[in-house]
Amino acid sequence: MRIAVLGGDGFIGWPATLHLSNLGFEVFIADNLSRRWIDTELGVQSLTPMDSIQERRRVWREVTGHDIGFERIDVASDYSGLKSWLDELRPDAVLHLAKQRAAPYSMKSDQHKNYTVSNNVNATHQVLNALVELSLDAHLVHIGTMGVYGYANVGATIPEGYLPVDIRLDDGSSSTLDILYPANPGSIYHMTKCLDQLMFQFYAKNDGLRVTDLHQGIVWGTHTDQTRRHVQLINRFDYDGDYGTVLNRFLIQAAIGHPLTVHGTGGQTRAFIHIQDCVRCIELALKNPPERGARTQIFNQMTETYRLRDLAHMICDLTGAEVAWLPNPRNEPEENELVVRNDQLLDLGLQPTTLKEGLLEELVDVAKKYAHRIDRSRILSTAAWSKERAERLAGSNGNAIG
Amino acid sequence: MRIAVLGGDGFIGWPATLHLSNLGFEVFIADNLSRRWIDTELGVQSLTPMDSIQERRRVWREVTGHDIGFERIDVASDYSGLKSWLDELRPDAVLHLAKQRAAPYSMKSDQHKNYTVSNNVNATHQVLNALVELSLDAHLVHIGTMGVYGYANVGATIPEGYLPVDIRLDDGSSSTLDILYPANPGSIYHMTKCLDQLMFQFYAKNDGLRVTDLHQGIVWGTHTDQTRRHVQLINRFDYDGDYGTVLNRFLIQAAIGHPLTVHGTGGQTRAFIHIQDCVRCIELALKNPPERGARTQIFNQMTETYRLRDLAHMICDLTGAEVAWLPNPRNEPEENELVVRNDQLLDLGLQPTTLKEGLLEELVDVAKKYAHRIDRSRILSTAAWSKERAERLAGSNGNAIG
Repeated sequence: MRIAVLGGDGFIGWPATLHLSNLGFEVFIADNLSRRWIDTELGVQSLTPMDSIQERRRVWREVTGHDIGFERIDVASDYSGLKSWLDELRPDAVLHLAKQRAAPYSMKSDQHKNYTVSNNVNATHQVLNALVELSLDAHLVHIGTMGVYGYANVGATIPEGYLPVDIRLDDGSSSTLDILYPANPGSIYHMTKCLDQLMFQFYAKNDGLRVTDLHQGIVWGTHTDQTRRHVQLINRFDYDGDYGTVLNRFLIQAAIGHPLTVHGTGGQTRAFIHIQDCVRCIELALKNPPERGARTQIFNQMTETYRLRDLAHMICDLTGAEVAWLPNPRNEPEENELVVRNDQLLDLGLQPTTLKEGLLEELVDVAKKYAHRIDRSRILSTAAWSKERAERLAGSNGNAIG
Repeated sequence: MRIAVLGGDGFIGWPATLHLSNLGFEVFIADNLSRRWIDTELGVQSLTPMDSIQERRRVWREVTGHDIGFERIDVASDYSGLKSWLDELRPDAVLHLAKQRAAPYSMKSDQHKNYTVSNNVNATHQVLNALVELSLDAHLVHIGTMGVYGYANVGATIPEGYLPVDIRLDDGSSSTLDILYPANPGSIYHMTKCLDQLMFQFYAKNDGLRVTDLHQGIVWGTHTDQTRRHVQLINRFDYDGDYGTVLNRFLIQAAIGHPLTVHGTGGQTRAFIHIQDCVRCIELALKNPPERGARTQIFNQMTETYRLRDLAHMICDLTGAEVAWLPNPRNEPEENELVVRNDQLLDLGLQPTTLKEGLLEELVDVAKKYAHRIDRSRILSTAAWSKERAERLAGSNGNAIG
């Protein structure tokens, strides 16, 4: 199988590329390397020392004998470049990761909001558009987010993408519709993923495109079996306030003996998945496309849920760290339940890696091993979700760090 | 009240501008004049002889003494221009019409799809973004479309934007959620209006923006009380296959003695509103903003529904024209019911102009009066909604015209 990976130089794109290449797929990356530019913009770097895409590919070829194609294409702005590249490759599947993928970054300023909307919407639309224009019946696999489910606190388990609802008809009876789960995003980034869903729905219905949307939880972990094969194949690890996930920031704080900073009550429940499971899910999705003419296939790509305070306590237990409580910059409920169905990927064979099993290794092999590279000034999030919250937070000392 | 009209040179923008200016509002237009460029691209022109925006404003000032501001700004691509213009004006309301507004045009080619998505999504997002950034509590009034309601055939009256649905909870009980009506758009253009809705929802929730979205039916008619005040104030009238509405095409066909071309069975029901009612609805919306912190206020801006074949027959009765039946290029049911609530605008004082009263005048004062300017080769729609349909249609002689 021949696979085009859009955004194959990124945090998920790189290990996914290696995983698929190792399985014998022919893999071709298109990437504008924007994530590297954003590191420069933010003045941060991956905790793990990360090589150029050219060097990474050279090492992979040396280690495995497999070639990985690469073309520098801006999927969101260079439609003709994208189209001719796809036309030349005629891939069986397109793995679409060409996004600005951090919620805090998307909320930093009006420029970052515009960039995130324009980049993410146009990237998705141009891929769909090109597939139709080229009459290319490639299966499109996209990484979405659990964040599209906005009504998680109503007491109903989150289904996989579609929600059966009863509506009242004019004749007094009622009818059940299976609708795309109502969108209620919490950031500009999450909003773009909701917009993606409507574009997938339209192109599946109007043009028969085959699309799988993986609604993913927070990805944790750095190594996969393939990135471990050579030190120069290592994946990136972000811990800054914009791109670092809450878990990565906890790990880094624990590694340097800083209190774990929990926003609000820590009662927010989040869904998690290990990077090794993530790339395995992508493999499972690629091997199980929907029928042509079917609606978008949606899998929830997560394996466990934790409240943030429980996660913090788990790390405290491993390391002896303490917790520091800070105000919450996000416009969201302080406490939420999150019960999520994920049967489809489990049925296809996913074997979850749990936080309980894997966290210690991540702490020792990554956070502590590279602790000398930690920039202690970049651990807290600085994006305020709205002007009102920005003013409220400015009055507190929430952003001070010891 | 000071009002910024984005897209004030267009088919709705111009008569809305005059209507509001006549009421004593201070009106300022931002427009990139793209609609005029598209005429040039398509090699078509308004049936009515339409003056430049500069000349239109000069005549209005002569006739009424009122000034209308104008700035050539591309709302979708010139964020800093938009922002400084809004900051200088500090309007009380923004009427947002800066869109590519034709479904057939949005489906013409991959380039037109990209343009429509990028232009329409970025235009809406940049306006919202600028309002937040400028801390400008202006009421945003946007023209949406009835086309966002995709499940019209299920036997339930279309509500005004929000649908009460019952969902099943984990404890066996059920709960009613009032959700944004599930999107199921029929073209790229309609899809962008569904994307708009999610952006409005996000900015209303996250930043407290006050937004009214007018879900409009097909607008018919050319003259309003204000455009009638001088021949050079006349509004545009489109009858080509891309921008001409089904009703305008019927009128033009009747005016030149051509059969009225009905696509499919003509059983498609559409919602209609006269341009005079449209600008009155905009006035009513501007005078009745939602509260800060409220969800998007949604009004259905339509006054009657007709099946297309019944509309054709009404015009045949007026003129003696005949009907020609053609294949339907749209991916939609051949027959649909459409029962729509529009209580809110009626309650605010809208007095509908009906097709039965107004069609003859439109036929005589516009279609027949300017019949010498009709380009007979441009009456049929040429955009196929998908590759599959394009092939099917190419096999028929549906696009031949006598």
